[in-house]
Amino acid sequence: MIRPKLSVSSVTFHLLLVTYVTFVTSQYLPTWDSLDSRPLPTWYDEAKFGIFMHWGVFSVPSYGSEWFWWNWKGLHRPLYVMFMANNYPPSFKYQDFAPMFRAEFYDPDEWAEILEASGARYLVLTSKHHEGWTNWGSKYSWNWNSVDAGPHRDLVGALANSIREKTSLKFGLYYSLFEWFHPLYLEDKKNGYKTQTYVKDVMTPQMYEIVNTYKPEIVWSDGDWEAPDTYWNSTEFLAWLYNDSPVKDTVVTNDRWGDGDRCKHGGYYTCNDRYNPGVLQKHKWENCMTIDKHSWGYRRNSPLSDYLDMDNLTQILAETVSCGGNLLMNIGPTSDGRIAPIFEERLRQMGSWLKVNGEAIYSSKPWTHQNDTITPGIWYTSKADAVYGIVLDWPNSNKLLLGAPKTTEQTTIMMLGYPTPLTWSAEQPTGLIVSMPTIPISQLPCQWAWVLKFTNIS
Amino acid sequence: MIRPKLSVSSVTFHLLLVTYVTFVTSQYLPTWDSLDSRPLPTWYDEAKFGIFMHWGVFSVPSYGSEWFWWNWKGLHRPLYVMFMANNYPPSFKYQDFAPMFRAEFYDPDEWAEILEASGARYLVLTSKHHEGWTNWGSKYSWNWNSVDAGPHRDLVGALANSIREKTSLKFGLYYSLFEWFHPLYLEDKKNGYKTQTYVKDVMTPQMYEIVNTYKPEIVWSDGDWEAPDTYWNSTEFLAWLYNDSPVKDTVVTNDRWGDGDRCKHGGYYTCNDRYNPGVLQKHKWENCMTIDKHSWGYRRNSPLSDYLDMDNLTQILAETVSCGGNLLMNIGPTSDGRIAPIFEERLRQMGSWLKVNGEAIYSSKPWTHQNDTITPGIWYTSKADAVYGIVLDWPNSNKLLLGAPKTTEQTTIMMLGYPTPLTWSAEQPTGLIVSMPTIPISQLPCQWAWVLKFTNIS
Amino acid sequence: MIRPKLSVSSVTFHLLLVTYVTFVTSQYLPTWDSLDSRPLPTWYDEAKFGIFMHWGVFSVPSYGSEWFWWNWKGLHRPLYVMFMANNYPPSFKYQDFAPMFRAEFYDPDEWAEILEASGARYLVLTSKHHEGWTNWGSKYSWNWNSVDAGPHRDLVGALANSIREKTSLKFGLYYSLFEWFHPLYLEDKKNGYKTQTYVKDVMTPQMYEIVNTYKPEIVWSDGDWEAPDTYWNSTEFLAWLYNDSPVKDTVVTNDRWGDGDRCKHGGYYTCNDRYNPGVLQKHKWENCMTIDKHSWGYRRNSPLSDYLDMDNLTQILAETVSCGGNLLMNIGPTSDGRIAPIFEERLRQMGSWLKVNGEAIYSSKPWTHQNDTITPGIWYTSKADAVYGIVLDWPNSNKLLLGAPKTTEQTTIMMLGYPTPLTWSAEQPTGLIVSMPTIPISQLPCQWAWVLKFTNIS
Amino acid sequence: MIRPKLSVSSVTFHLLLVTYVTFVTSQYLPTWDSLDSRPLPTWYDEAKFGIFMHWGVFSVPSYGSEWFWWNWKGLHRPLYVMFMANNYPPSFKYQDFAPMFRAEFYDPDEWAEILEASGARYLVLTSKHHEGWTNWGSKYSWNWNSVDAGPHRDLVGALANSIREKTSLKFGLYYSLFEWFHPLYLEDKKNGYKTQTYVKDVMTPQMYEIVNTYKPEIVWSDGDWEAPDTYWNSTEFLAWLYNDSPVKDTVVTNDRWGDGDRCKHGGYYTCNDRYNPGVLQKHKWENCMTIDKHSWGYRRNSPLSDYLDMDNLTQILAETVSCGGNLLMNIGPTSDGRIAPIFEERLRQMGSWLKVNGEAIYSSKPWTHQNDTITPGIWYTSKADAVYGIVLDWPNSNKLLLGAPKTTEQTTIMMLGYPTPLTWSAEQPTGLIVSMPTIPISQLPCQWAWVLKFTNIS
Repeated sequence: MIRPKLSVSSVTFHLLLVTYVTFVTSQYLPTWDSLDSRPLPTWYDEAKFGIFMHWGVFSVPSYGSEWFWWNWKGLHRPLYVMFMANNYPPSFKYQDFAPMFRAEFYDPDEWAEILEASGARYLVLTSKHHEGWTNWGSKYSWNWNSVDAGPHRDLVGALANSIREKTSLKFGLYYSLFEWFHPLYLEDKKNGYKTQTYVKDVMTPQMYEIVNTYKPEIVWSDGDWEAPDTYWNSTEFLAWLYNDSPVKDTVVTNDRWGDGDRCKHGGYYTCNDRYNPGVLQKHKWENCMTIDKHSWGYRRNSPLSDYLDMDNLTQILAETVSCGGNLLMNIGPTSDGRIAPIFEERLRQMGSWLKVNGEAIYSSKPWTHQNDTITPGIWYTSKADAVYGIVLDWPNSNKLLLGAPKTTEQTTIMMLGYPTPLTWSAEQPTGLIVSMPTIPISQLPCQWAWVLKFTNIS
Repeated sequence: MIRPKLSVSSVTFHLLLVTYVTFVTSQYLPTWDSLDSRPLPTWYDEAKFGIFMHWGVFSVPSYGSEWFWWNWKGLHRPLYVMFMANNYPPSFKYQDFAPMFRAEFYDPDEWAEILEASGARYLVLTSKHHEGWTNWGSKYSWNWNSVDAGPHRDLVGALANSIREKTSLKFGLYYSLFEWFHPLYLEDKKNGYKTQTYVKDVMTPQMYEIVNTYKPEIVWSDGDWEAPDTYWNSTEFLAWLYNDSPVKDTVVTNDRWGDGDRCKHGGYYTCNDRYNPGVLQKHKWENCMTIDKHSWGYRRNSPLSDYLDMDNLTQILAETVSCGGNLLMNIGPTSDGRIAPIFEERLRQMGSWLKVNGEAIYSSKPWTHQNDTITPGIWYTSKADAVYGIVLDWPNSNKLLLGAPKTTEQTTIMMLGYPTPLTWSAEQPTGLIVSMPTIPISQLPCQWAWVLKFTNIS
Repeated sequence: MIRPKLSVSSVTFHLLLVTYVTFVTSQYLPTWDSLDSRPLPTWYDEAKFGIFMHWGVFSVPSYGSEWFWWNWKGLHRPLYVMFMANNYPPSFKYQDFAPMFRAEFYDPDEWAEILEASGARYLVLTSKHHEGWTNWGSKYSWNWNSVDAGPHRDLVGALANSIREKTSLKFGLYYSLFEWFHPLYLEDKKNGYKTQTYVKDVMTPQMYEIVNTYKPEIVWSDGDWEAPDTYWNSTEFLAWLYNDSPVKDTVVTNDRWGDGDRCKHGGYYTCNDRYNPGVLQKHKWENCMTIDKHSWGYRRNSPLSDYLDMDNLTQILAETVSCGGNLLMNIGPTSDGRIAPIFEERLRQMGSWLKVNGEAIYSSKPWTHQNDTITPGIWYTSKADAVYGIVLDWPNSNKLLLGAPKTTEQTTIMMLGYPTPLTWSAEQPTGLIVSMPTIPISQLPCQWAWVLKFTNIS
Repeated sequence: MIRPKLSVSSVTFHLLLVTYVTFVTSQYLPTWDSLDSRPLPTWYDEAKFGIFMHWGVFSVPSYGSEWFWWNWKGLHRPLYVMFMANNYPPSFKYQDFAPMFRAEFYDPDEWAEILEASGARYLVLTSKHHEGWTNWGSKYSWNWNSVDAGPHRDLVGALANSIREKTSLKFGLYYSLFEWFHPLYLEDKKNGYKTQTYVKDVMTPQMYEIVNTYKPEIVWSDGDWEAPDTYWNSTEFLAWLYNDSPVKDTVVTNDRWGDGDRCKHGGYYTCNDRYNPGVLQKHKWENCMTIDKHSWGYRRNSPLSDYLDMDNLTQILAETVSCGGNLLMNIGPTSDGRIAPIFEERLRQMGSWLKVNGEAIYSSKPWTHQNDTITPGIWYTSKADAVYGIVLDWPNSNKLLLGAPKTTEQTTIMMLGYPTPLTWSAEQPTGLIVSMPTIPISQLPCQWAWVLKFTNIS
């Protein structure tokens, strides 16, 4: 959380007033001024790495992306229209996929074990995506939820329990404000968002339902862009969430609360999907991205080349954390309730990397420099007196020329996971040269992205 | 419509006041006093005979009755539990029947032709039964209706159009106030009906939807018994229906508006299912019954012996109309959209009978006597100067001894559909003897229940 | 069985020889001469009335007729192509209907009760129709039979047991020699029927299977027309059937054994479907017809007008039996294992008619005249000294002018089911006039087709 | 092919005679002596590495293993019984899975590209497994094959075409002699294999079908163990295959031709599944194994830990090839027609390894030593003057002590994929020490199992 700088101005005065009221009443007001003044619970910035999961009826066709329904029936994209024409009867509708969402292999304890092994510190599960289907038995989405139809289970609740019993991860929930095809939403939309039937009969009750029932530590809002937050009643919801909800002290939210709010209001900023600015940000942010390059939901037919590999993933993690962000890395479970082995492999690979190098990630802070001034592909973090340089590519020469760290005579450079200090030499005028250890591959602490730890630098 | 007798009492004064206000404002008040004062539109009493149709997701299992879901999941009746265990996977839920409701043969024009041929003057179709599924695309039952799921058609609208374009029948809609399993209803119920979330978010909007969209000339309410009309807001709805709805001048309603209201308030009285009192009623009433003795919805496995035959049906029609009632005779269409041939046969048989004998039914009035004082199985109606005696069983002796009609010298007795006046003789002191014509079967006007028409009786 | 007249000719000599050999060896030879010489077991001619049932995978689409597959994939008839395109995915094949053939309501005891009530004396069930699917678990049709797929029951065996335990009907089996799409048959066909792989690997083993397993008292062959009996090895099969099979003494066969054999060879003659020549036949024959005018298999969407009614059915029965035929009346069970109520009604109506009038049918013989010489619609049978006149239409005048019976003074005319002899008078020169009884409808012995029994005519 | 040693004995004389006859007639006799004398076509030994694919109806439940049906219905193993009870209706049979085998994503060109990228030189696809389902439209398995049911495609033919058009791989077919549940097989079995109905009507015709239609270059027989080859008519088939079939010159077969034949007769030896003896074999052999440790067919729910990784796979390849074997590595495609990404990853990893190290594999010969005499985990192959040592684990010390190669002064040691000769020194008395290059990971020719090439050794 970046504190606002105070200066004597009317804006500032207003902020002071809001803060004062908030302080006196111990209550946030349903205004952005007040809500934005809430400090972000510290656990979130320390966590750095979370897993995102997109699961829903879209996991059944498992084709194209989780926007299947919209691409098919909203945009009439030929690929989707053909897929349906080739494989289903003409009268088949998206809703007819629901009974095929069976989740027969769903074992939330097994998921919890894999997620813990990934090194992630939090999980965000789609409780409801734009299709409107809820992965819990919402009273406000009767017969279009995972208890009344499809798996006939409380998918959200089962995972919340396992995560909390078996792991130390925080449990968060994604929730889509809008729905592509909800008739009450479409009616409000047709009315220029001057009516709020959908918000009052469906959306707000559901948000209370998930917070009260599952006590998520993240409320990851989405589907915000079609209407202003005044339509969604976002500030009212957040005021309740921060003041009175069962998670008021620990809950973290993002910035997707209404058209124009992203990167501006709310908890941490997500801005756009796959937001990865490469420079330090003033406000706490999150890079949400997905291992399958083209989809957040599981795609049955994505080839191997569509899955990011560990070189990609360690790079994105390094870039994100160095610039003050958290990484929220997405996988899509299958409709029969599995984490596909290719995703499990990526998760366990990330975990094995973090087991060695987590010191440079968890609870780290951005350093003066985010990446090196001379050699590209080196990203820095810091913690207390130490600085960490994440080296994405091992230098062919075994020599690394660095510009950012200013050495002293006491400077020590270690590679995380390797016991012997590295030799280095100052290089005038620009920086220093680090000799990477000439160790056989069998001795390497990890296979991708090695971390140098600098201590006693000036 | 039986007019209240006026007498000087506080009750009467109150009624007068209500009437006065109603008169002055041309508006009914949302009170039973006011609503009950509305005269029943005359078309209804003249119609006498209507067809009822129960169609819904229950038409898919098509087993036991339209109460399948409740019998299975509410009462856990062994027959239903076994049926499901034997034929479906353990995780199968009632909702999973919806995609199998296909209505692929549904041809509303064909239905209209059959319904017209039955001689009925109105139709009542289930728009929503206790399962909550709507046969139109209700915005307030998203994904649990016939447009979003199953047939993917507006079943109600299609039939309304065909009935209006192809026939002279009035089009009415059945609507169940309560739903067995709607979570919002169950919540209100748990709250002792002190909350009305279900009524406000679901039920009332739906009732406005069907009235505004389909302009039904009957609103056939049901599912009333669990809560008082104050919970259902019935009087408010009726006030709107009578004052401001697009069918305010012609619409007819029944009496199922809340616990305790049956046989007491509303439009015509239905009292109980299969209500057939056998004596004249003071208030206009309707006998709703079903050809399949055990079910209103289609049952795939009902044997022939479960279907009423024409002897039964003509008897029930005669008893009902003679006592001032209308007959609403039910059939259950199949999930693939057909009227089964056995039902079609009954409908056409009724039509063939009414073609000959409708004069005694349509627009008739109860007579002084409802049935004969001497010979059982003879039921009377009247119209202008004529009296009609419906003879359920042809006398073995060809002689009919009657007690009710008081003959004069000018009395003429005809058999409907037969050209020659019947001979008769006065029989002291009790009545008269009519000689039935000794005509071969090929000359009979009909096969069941012959009608004698008396004119010039005293 | 009409005996061949002997005359001195080479043909006759040959026949004599065959008969002699047959007599001496007690064995039929695999030649038509020998096989045709076998007397038809007497039970068949006495039975007069049987029920035919067409049941198979075609009962699932239940559309068009039991020739669905051929109409769709053989002839590409637009109606069928459209039906599939509208209701199924493009890749759907006929075989995919098999798992939907569930027979979940199949209760062979219930069927047996209904069949017994129909008055029929024998039953013929399709064991295999042209689709090749066997209603028993044929070893030679693995995975394309009712035990391995679909109902997962021995449909044939279950009905055989019920028929034999609960009724006095004879149990017969229909079997289609050819199959539209069996690849081995198609190969033989392509080879101009010079190879017999299909006959040897599939057809013959199956015919032995059903005879040995179910001991049918009728083997009702069909699908004969594409190839000569030398391809089908028909005479070899029949020789075994008559000489060595477990039903050799009682089994009856028809005439569909190869191209050109109909109306010429085998047991009784069926000639064409719905064969009803209207004149006396020299050889015992059978009129196989179906209540649904357009289909032998059940059609879900046949309207009432497609079902023959009792006026039609009594007429056909009378015409058939009067001319020496048996009537084999077909119904199509549903894929869920029911006899639809409309069929049940027809069957019970036939039974009620036969209960009164069976005396004129069962074990009767053709009379000198088949129908009356003056009044149309009157068909005669005889038994011992009695002659029976089946009067299809009750005369409007109640007077019946007959030309065929030659009365004597002792002539008595009764109506079956009515106790009092009818009055009659001779009418010169043509015949006699019978006075039908002027009884009320409630006293009539039946509703359709009354039978006059003449005794003591010359 | 290991030539038999000749010695003067009756056995030898007999062999000579057979060879003579074979030579003179250019025909193999249907005896093992003659058939075993056929030289193995050379392409096979040179290929070294093939891919096995198990695909069938078992890919639909995709649970347990490809022995699903037998485990469920043959052995009634509780895990399988429960799986079915929990997820399917009671009447569900294995055959009902067939319509769910859709292969909608099956793109044989895409498969061909992946298979080529794996470095494999041949492919073996299951044409029919023990379930009897054929992946081509067999005339002898009507309606239980991939053209009549399920995918409605010729799966075998489509892949044969793609493999031949797009790759240089040889195309082979697996075929199961026996079938768990074929009724004709079960009958033969009950008869103590004294009848051969199944062999004559089903098995032999199918084997001719696949050979004549798809011209496979491997006929990979299986399911041999229940009966002797005299029941299967194996030698007759092989004689035809070697003498007259369209692939007589190039086809390779294995040794699974009847009880007792494995490791003794036929083409190359497979002995048991996963046969990997670790010592040089006299006869050409093949190690068939599968990446999923527990199943040959695809299992939806196998966790990552059930998939062998590249350390395992390179080890098995090295062990196998060093001892004279070929490796046939199995993957199981999904029922919707995909190679799962985890399999694709393993295949491409193998290909990347072989791209660098294939010189030591393809067309190599076993060397004097199969593995090193001092350091474990080093396996040798040879080609012309070169010897290859496959080093499974990089030595922590970067020094490798070897006992097998006898150096000379001219001895050169290279690492495949690395340009500079390695330094080495003789070590008395045991062998030599090789210095592995101290190169950074980014310079390594591969990530697993490095190959040393020795030239000019004594």
